[in-house]
Amino acid sequence: MLDEAVGLGAVTVLGVLEQAYFSLQVIYARRKYSVSPPCISGPPEFERIFRAQANCSEYFPIFITILWTSGVFFSQGLSSLCGLLYLYGRLCYFWGYAESAQGRLAPLYFSARVLWVLIGFSAVGVFLSFCRVYMELDLLQALGHA
Amino acid sequence: MLDEAVGLGAVTVLGVLEQAYFSLQVIYARRKYSVSPPCISGPPEFERIFRAQANCSEYFPIFITILWTSGVFFSQGLSSLCGLLYLYGRLCYFWGYAESAQGRLAPLYFSARVLWVLIGFSAVGVFLSFCRVYMELDLLQALGHA
Amino acid sequence: MLDEAVGLGAVTVLGVLEQAYFSLQVIYARRKYSVSPPCISGPPEFERIFRAQANCSEYFPIFITILWTSGVFFSQGLSSLCGLLYLYGRLCYFWGYAESAQGRLAPLYFSARVLWVLIGFSAVGVFLSFCRVYMELDLLQALGHA
Ligand SMILES: N[C@@H](CCC(=O)N[C@@H](CS)C(=O)NCC(=O)O)C(=O)O
Ligand SMILES: N[C@@H](CCC(=O)N[C@@H](CS)C(=O)NCC(=O)O)C(=O)O
Ligand SMILES: N[C@@H](CCC(=O)N[C@@H](CS)C(=O)NCC(=O)O)C(=O)O
Repeated sequence: MLDEAVGLGAVTVLGVLEQAYFSLQVIYARRKYSVSPPCISGPPEFERIFRAQANCSEYFPIFITILWTSGVFFSQGLSSLCGLLYLYGRLCYFWGYAESAQGRLAPLYFSARVLWVLIGFSAVGVFLSFCRVYMELDLLQALGHA
Repeated sequence: MLDEAVGLGAVTVLGVLEQAYFSLQVIYARRKYSVSPPCISGPPEFERIFRAQANCSEYFPIFITILWTSGVFFSQGLSSLCGLLYLYGRLCYFWGYAESAQGRLAPLYFSARVLWVLIGFSAVGVFLSFCRVYMELDLLQALGHA
Repeated sequence: MLDEAVGLGAVTVLGVLEQAYFSLQVIYARRKYSVSPPCISGPPEFERIFRAQANCSEYFPIFITILWTSGVFFSQGLSSLCGLLYLYGRLCYFWGYAESAQGRLAPLYFSARVLWVLIGFSAVGVFLSFCRVYMELDLLQALGHA
């Protein structure tokens, strides 16, 4: 099992490192703009960095969940690739949002699209597994013979 | 392993779709009530939708974690069923909260109760596995013989 | 597979219980300081409890993800131990933050350090698995022979 998951594991570690980087940016921004916890409002520059990290944190569990569902039920290779694209999109989102509210949009659409691809992979993978397990029907093989 | 997890996988995909739906509702509400990021305060109608999504996002990783722990260590069927109930409860929570702060309470209690059931299942499952692995004691079998 | 994960499962259930405890504290604080949803600002005492729970919730998926990555790819025993230390650190963080903003710092540094250890374990574990699977090189064995 482990052997089939090494790509997913690598993307997961990268994702955690990215979240750690975002958190550190918020800590630096809190110092730079003197916004002491528990306060969460301040100059727009701070609020954009704060919200960029909050938004990425909100999507992180969704991303990890769908990455592994897609990787385990559909294809490890394709899912890991999408995972890398998603993490790249989120990095651009964070940097873009830190610059201006407008700057978050293009990378947001990009990473959302990658997420939809992973959701599609997962749905197909779970459906094929369902047919195999509960209906004893191997659709891929059946299609191959047709 | 996969074959025993197809129900959990299906509930997981549904859960991710539900979170995507909540996010889209916040995006629509931001447009409707003209609350541009990084701002997070606005008219009460907006704030209720915003908080409903934030609250569901906060509980999503807890839900996914306990769903799989319960499914892997206790019972896939029962856990998937509870998972569906939880997702239904969260949908009612979101719609109820969007209507009024009061409207969130009944579905909140319902989904919290389902979560406690999943926590109970997980605790029992982990405890039984612990006895089996570290004390070489199969409690279920021992009880059956008693 | 299950047998090798019983420690991780136990830490996971504990982590979920801790999150449930934090959520309940926010609900009590909302009553005590009369801060009705969807409002999230109030007296500093309330805001510190609110942010303590928000911060722990933000890190919870990161923690669970890296706990299991480290446990599956590196060592279940060491990861479970770090998991317990992390959960203990977060409890101190919550109590400290509820007291004063200053009080959150020491336990925050502690739990962050534990998280970095888990990230290190995961990175090493994934790298060793990668060498074994894709380069047919068992580094641990090779080092043992050297
Ligand atoms: N929590 C998000 C949920 C929806 C979402 O992901 N929105 C996108 C497009 S408007 C975003 O970039 N939100 C900015 C933010 O979360 O600060 C929000 O408040 O907007
Ligand atoms: N983050 C939550 C933690 C506790 C919780 O889940 N509270 C329930 C019952 S008061 C809720 O519906 N909160 C509304 C909200 O999060 O906006 C909060 O701020 O209240
Ligand atoms: N969301 C966090 C991200 C960074 C973080 O974890 N900060 C630490 C050190 S400043 C903290 O304790 N934040 C307090 C809080 O989140 O309320 C923040 O807003 O600060």
